[in-house]
Amino acid sequence: METLGLALMGTGRMAQVYGPKINAHPGLRLEVIYNPRIASAEKAAAQYGGRAMDDLASVLADRGVDAVVIATPTDTHLDYIEAAAQAGKPIYCEKPIDQSLDRVDRALAALDRHAVPFMVGFNRRFDPDNAAFREAVGSGEIGRLTMLMSWSREPSPPPIDYVRASGGYFVDATIHDIDLLCWIAGERPVEVYAAGSCMFDPRIGAEGDFDLTMTTLKMPSGALVHVNNSRACAYGFDQRLEAAGDAGMIQTVNHREDNLVRWDSRRTAAREPLKHFFLERYDLSFDHALDEFYAAVTEGRAPSATADDGRAALAIALACAKSAKSGHAEVPDYRRSHESS
Amino acid sequence: METLGLALMGTGRMAQVYGPKINAHPGLRLEVIYNPRIASAEKAAAQYGGRAMDDLASVLADRGVDAVVIATPTDTHLDYIEAAAQAGKPIYCEKPIDQSLDRVDRALAALDRHAVPFMVGFNRRFDPDNAAFREAVGSGEIGRLTMLMSWSREPSPPPIDYVRASGGYFVDATIHDIDLLCWIAGERPVEVYAAGSCMFDPRIGAEGDFDLTMTTLKMPSGALVHVNNSRACAYGFDQRLEAAGDAGMIQTVNHREDNLVRWDSRRTAAREPLKHFFLERYDLSFDHALDEFYAAVTEGRAPSATADDGRAALAIALACAKSAKSGHAEVPDYRRSHESS
Amino acid sequence: METLGLALMGTGRMAQVYGPKINAHPGLRLEVIYNPRIASAEKAAAQYGGRAMDDLASVLADRGVDAVVIATPTDTHLDYIEAAAQAGKPIYCEKPIDQSLDRVDRALAALDRHAVPFMVGFNRRFDPDNAAFREAVGSGEIGRLTMLMSWSREPSPPPIDYVRASGGYFVDATIHDIDLLCWIAGERPVEVYAAGSCMFDPRIGAEGDFDLTMTTLKMPSGALVHVNNSRACAYGFDQRLEAAGDAGMIQTVNHREDNLVRWDSRRTAAREPLKHFFLERYDLSFDHALDEFYAAVTEGRAPSATADDGRAALAIALACAKSAKSGHAEVPDYRRSHESS
Amino acid sequence: METLGLALMGTGRMAQVYGPKINAHPGLRLEVIYNPRIASAEKAAAQYGGRAMDDLASVLADRGVDAVVIATPTDTHLDYIEAAAQAGKPIYCEKPIDQSLDRVDRALAALDRHAVPFMVGFNRRFDPDNAAFREAVGSGEIGRLTMLMSWSREPSPPPIDYVRASGGYFVDATIHDIDLLCWIAGERPVEVYAAGSCMFDPRIGAEGDFDLTMTTLKMPSGALVHVNNSRACAYGFDQRLEAAGDAGMIQTVNHREDNLVRWDSRRTAAREPLKHFFLERYDLSFDHALDEFYAAVTEGRAPSATADDGRAALAIALACAKSAKSGHAEVPDYRRSHESS
Repeated sequence: METLGLALMGTGRMAQVYGPKINAHPGLRLEVIYNPRIASAEKAAAQYGGRAMDDLASVLADRGVDAVVIATPTDTHLDYIEAAAQAGKPIYCEKPIDQSLDRVDRALAALDRHAVPFMVGFNRRFDPDNAAFREAVGSGEIGRLTMLMSWSREPSPPPIDYVRASGGYFVDATIHDIDLLCWIAGERPVEVYAAGSCMFDPRIGAEGDFDLTMTTLKMPSGALVHVNNSRACAYGFDQRLEAAGDAGMIQTVNHREDNLVRWDSRRTAAREPLKHFFLERYDLSFDHALDEFYAAVTEGRAPSATADDGRAALAIALACAKSAKSGHAEVPDYRRSHESS
Repeated sequence: METLGLALMGTGRMAQVYGPKINAHPGLRLEVIYNPRIASAEKAAAQYGGRAMDDLASVLADRGVDAVVIATPTDTHLDYIEAAAQAGKPIYCEKPIDQSLDRVDRALAALDRHAVPFMVGFNRRFDPDNAAFREAVGSGEIGRLTMLMSWSREPSPPPIDYVRASGGYFVDATIHDIDLLCWIAGERPVEVYAAGSCMFDPRIGAEGDFDLTMTTLKMPSGALVHVNNSRACAYGFDQRLEAAGDAGMIQTVNHREDNLVRWDSRRTAAREPLKHFFLERYDLSFDHALDEFYAAVTEGRAPSATADDGRAALAIALACAKSAKSGHAEVPDYRRSHESS
Repeated sequence: METLGLALMGTGRMAQVYGPKINAHPGLRLEVIYNPRIASAEKAAAQYGGRAMDDLASVLADRGVDAVVIATPTDTHLDYIEAAAQAGKPIYCEKPIDQSLDRVDRALAALDRHAVPFMVGFNRRFDPDNAAFREAVGSGEIGRLTMLMSWSREPSPPPIDYVRASGGYFVDATIHDIDLLCWIAGERPVEVYAAGSCMFDPRIGAEGDFDLTMTTLKMPSGALVHVNNSRACAYGFDQRLEAAGDAGMIQTVNHREDNLVRWDSRRTAAREPLKHFFLERYDLSFDHALDEFYAAVTEGRAPSATADDGRAALAIALACAKSAKSGHAEVPDYRRSHESS
Repeated sequence: METLGLALMGTGRMAQVYGPKINAHPGLRLEVIYNPRIASAEKAAAQYGGRAMDDLASVLADRGVDAVVIATPTDTHLDYIEAAAQAGKPIYCEKPIDQSLDRVDRALAALDRHAVPFMVGFNRRFDPDNAAFREAVGSGEIGRLTMLMSWSREPSPPPIDYVRASGGYFVDATIHDIDLLCWIAGERPVEVYAAGSCMFDPRIGAEGDFDLTMTTLKMPSGALVHVNNSRACAYGFDQRLEAAGDAGMIQTVNHREDNLVRWDSRRTAAREPLKHFFLERYDLSFDHALDEFYAAVTEGRAPSATADDGRAALAIALACAKSAKSGHAEVPDYRRSHESS
């Protein structure tokens, strides 16, 4: 089996997810861990292996580096994309590409100039349940798709510093549902409407952000899409999909911590709480996302979650954020900006 | 047990629901069946009992008539409400009171002038599951309410003549969900947004109506509410509620035609299709609505689903209909009009 | 609708179930309540109506009495059966007919001499779920029947006086499962094996009885049948059936107190406890058993649960009781005794 | 991490399960594949790696061989156990140790003489669901254990040659349930009763064997245990456990091929068929069994499923087989025979 040497850019929360998974992947080799602060890179390298490096040019020139995985803070993604594209390295970039459409367009322009395989880390597409759900919908099992719904309720609000840097709830979290639902439906909304509240952590509201949202997407086919998101959920990380069509309905089942059913004098047929959060629930989806990146690069084809998909999801998320402020339906901006081309 | 003599106004679809149920109720007596066309009244009287009458004044003057149940075409409700209120008769009126807020305000004005017990036929409040659901939410079992969702998907589109006279999907059907959800939440929305499509019967779209909608209600507390409605559903009459709060979640279970679970080589743990439609699913709720009317009248108190509730639900439904056309969020008109007071 | 005037024999626990149900039945009339102690009869008559009587001959000679419902202590059933049969009155007799096969054979002999419609109160056959289950099995939906299982776990042990008079757990309770399973399978066991313990109430063990049993029935077709019974169950009255065949499996679903599903930080997808006991769970089955008795008598045909069914179920239950003592498999005694013919 | 070099004895069906799993285990090394026919050993070695060998003495003398995994035909287990024990090698032996209690006693005698770690391959103990189930029962969550039930229904009958060599259905298959249930209950039956039929493949009956059985175990505590086994099951490999106690009940959930729930006009809330058979369902349990063997050997302690457990399970299975023929309850023979000690 051909192996790809990877440079893991970043040492933060998401890099800690990817590091061990790259190591465990039969086709991938964790060659380099990069952080401009060498101490951080060295610490991470001590944990997952790989050589610690702090110089970008050296990383990209390194003979062992066949591709890069960008897991740095979002506002630095663009710089690494431009540099890696120019160096001809295939890129796996954690979502979102950027919080600004203009800067995403600059990334797209760089990828136009230097055509390298590029994949955005919408890992939920690669979850086996979500993939089987899409396949069932696509197979016509429920007939013509009419309604699509997604629940994504997180166990508890993140630290307020995380919220401040997140780009807002829609860009940080709803973007996952948006990409997944457009991928399942095979189309992108012509109009969106979103409503937001702050009911769990008042500091989130003080930042002008929401911790509770409901979103409606109107699809060109007429299909209607609903997303609900919550920064808190008492019973775990609630992840559900439901699709209705003129011949039936299909749903995904939440994952639980065990497979036991409990009966006592207070509650019957009860199950355990749901898996805690995304690391537990989507553990496999990160592995399968790396599989896809590996397969696309070694087969010389475009990976499944493209830069264009990343741009569209951001455009929709930003329209949602605008709608939740304006109180009006908004039209996503799907046209790439001039200055970037 | 005191019995109330009822005049059933109308002989159409809903009158056919109420007739036998009035007959079977231990406290009610089907005294009169009224239709301005005496042949229709006589035919109905032959079916459920009661005396056929075609003269409104005589009905209201009849010594056996203690109260009226209005189940005539919607655009005639106002006339009967005004006449019955003037005659001092308690009124049970099928929903909606009228399709026009102005005309509802005229009914409210009549009820102001002649204070008779008045109940609007929002029967779903009286369904045991829905009532238990509201009680659980109200008991604080799930903590502070944050999200509330309702599914109401009908088995197949109604005849196009029904659609034409219905006042549109929101006023005809969503109004049930709206009343139920406001009653559960204990508050009414400050803003609504609705999206509609026509994907099942193009004749419905040709009338400017929808057969598929998604609605968002923003509540004063910050709670967000979602409703989805569909004029077609392959697996029966899908009726679900879900409420989330900061301490948990609660859902209602759909009713099925039997209590068997089936396993074979294609599908496992499978259940029968859902009950066909509202007559099957909400059979008990009509009985319990009549119980409430009987109890309120005999106890001299106001029934649970008031004229004001009926007006509010209509105002919200009309705002939804407007939103689905305008593509914008709309504010329901909760202020009664001047000319009616 | 033709109505049947009934004499309700007895005023105890089961009579209290039948009294109100006879009253509510459109085709039945509670004509007489009989107890040799007139005070008890009068008290019951004051509760459910009917004329109190204490003289058996007068009851059976009464012109208003078309049929009798025997709900007296088990050891008196035989006397009433013989008298009612001789008087030519159709008989509904609570189960078991008697605790002794010899005495049942005397009842059968009386019914041979005086051919009146006779039904034994195996009400569980008339439960809609159990009836639908049997129909599904009989329809061939699961192919050829191979395994049949029944769970019947009661909420808490009965008073020890009840246990003493009950004839033992197999004759008192398992007999219900036995009749139901033979009726579903369409055959009766050639051999039975039962095991019993006393783990809930030591007074039951001190009486030589069990409060926990498992029973195996071997059917002539080769199908194997399992029953488990328990005098205590923490989560309500557990009533389940499962049938497997070469094409699939079918199960019944327990009934619960509400239709809500609850999620919180400890338990997810949880349901309410089961219905408390047989009065709550099998409420409808008593009504439907009376329907069958009414229909059979007015149509001049034999009711569904015959005297022969009652004898067979007792023979099997007695073989189980013997097996649980002997530790060996036993063969039910299906041959009627000589002295009774 | 210390690694153990293993000699895999055998190249048949079970060896094909263990070969790849040994290879994938971080602490195990597939050093040797043994078969007295060298061609078979070479073919297997080409598939999973390891050196092919056909001489037992050389295998046991090999410096790379730290322990042996015996996956040969059952009637050869004893020879390999005696040889490996004499050579001081830790032994993992596929179940059953032997089909004869006398021969098992000879194996136990060999292990008495040469105290090597010995584990019998009751892999179901190591399934995460079964282990969590046992832990829940042991934690007292359901109170004092009163009833324990196991379902094990295989998808389709094995080849008749397999049946002929299997030792009969109880020794081949029920032995798994027996070991699991005794391990969960923490006690062994004082008496067993089993019933068997042949309803799926008449050739199995012609061999004097069964393809459908129900078994009852009476435990010293008074707890009652039920097992049902079937050589055919239309909806997959049905594997369930249920335990009831005086405080509640607990069940395991079957595994399915996907996590989707399907609704259409014929069936609602339907799930996929179950996993096909033991390789799919118990894939993880083999890995965890090897984990236990590795941990026990490297930690110098006795593995969880001991030779004594293996003997007891066989004694119980043989008593079941005897009972199913005799039609009587039988007492398992737990006393080791004289000639073997």
